Amino acid sequence: MTENFKLVSVAQAPRTELHDQLGLTGCEVSINSLPVGAAVPFVHAHKQNEELYGVLSGSGEIWIDGEVHAIKAGDWFRVSPAGKRAIRAAENEGITFICMQTKAGSLENYTMTDGVMCEEKAPWLK
Amino acid sequence: MTENFKLVSVAQAPRTELHDQLGLTGCEVSINSLPVGAAVPFVHAHKQNEELYGVLSGSGEIWIDGEVHAIKAGDWFRVSPAGKRAIRAAENEGITFICMQTKAGSLENYTMTDGVMCEEKAPWLK
Repeated sequence: MTENFKLVSVAQAPRTELHDQLGLTGCEVSINSLPVGAAVPFVHAHKQNEELYGVLSGSGEIWIDGEVHAIKAGDWFRVSPAGKRAIRAAENEGITFICMQTKAGSLENYTMTDGVMCEEKAPWLK
Repeated sequence: MTENFKLVSVAQAPRTELHDQLGLTGCEVSINSLPVGAAVPFVHAHKQNEELYGVLSGSGEIWIDGEVHAIKAGDWFRVSPAGKRAIRAAENEGITFICMQTKAGSLENYTMTDGVMCEEKAPWLK
């Protein structure tokens, strides 16, 4: 199997971290589920990592720098390293979200400037 | 509103890119939906970016470096920059997946070594 590809199937769990399982070198990603009314039991910030969150299902709230914002399935949000944050599930439903950590300022190029078109054809493109 | 937080709500669409909308500096993330039987119409690789894919719903296949792998909801996979890749939806259902681009090798610390515990308390933690 090509060393350029590694896959894991993620089952429902309170928290799954992907960095070590997939050999990631540009990010750490966790998939997190909080049951109805549950909260991450602390406020945290980061030294150098930006976080991107995506709510996959359910709803809840994020407290950040003294503000409270409702979050729900389909919402994606950036939290800068210095943001002091805490998340909880709603009181009437749980929440499942992904959290992706990257080094702030590390992305240099993307998509059109980093992608390279290849002449190879997948079987279904021939 | 704190400058450390920015949120967008993402509707169902063929492709949504988050970098510019959220002011991301460590990654570009896209949310992609392919209808039944559809395929990204090219093979591509990257110059310096690693990609992490997560299948949010449905199923399909990835062709990478001459191999074909089945992919389904709950699967997460890394593709190194040099991997030549193409994705298609299954012939009996569509697929929705996220793709996160980061600069390979850019992550220095994460979670326990990058996180900072804060003394502040969210209202529900008091």
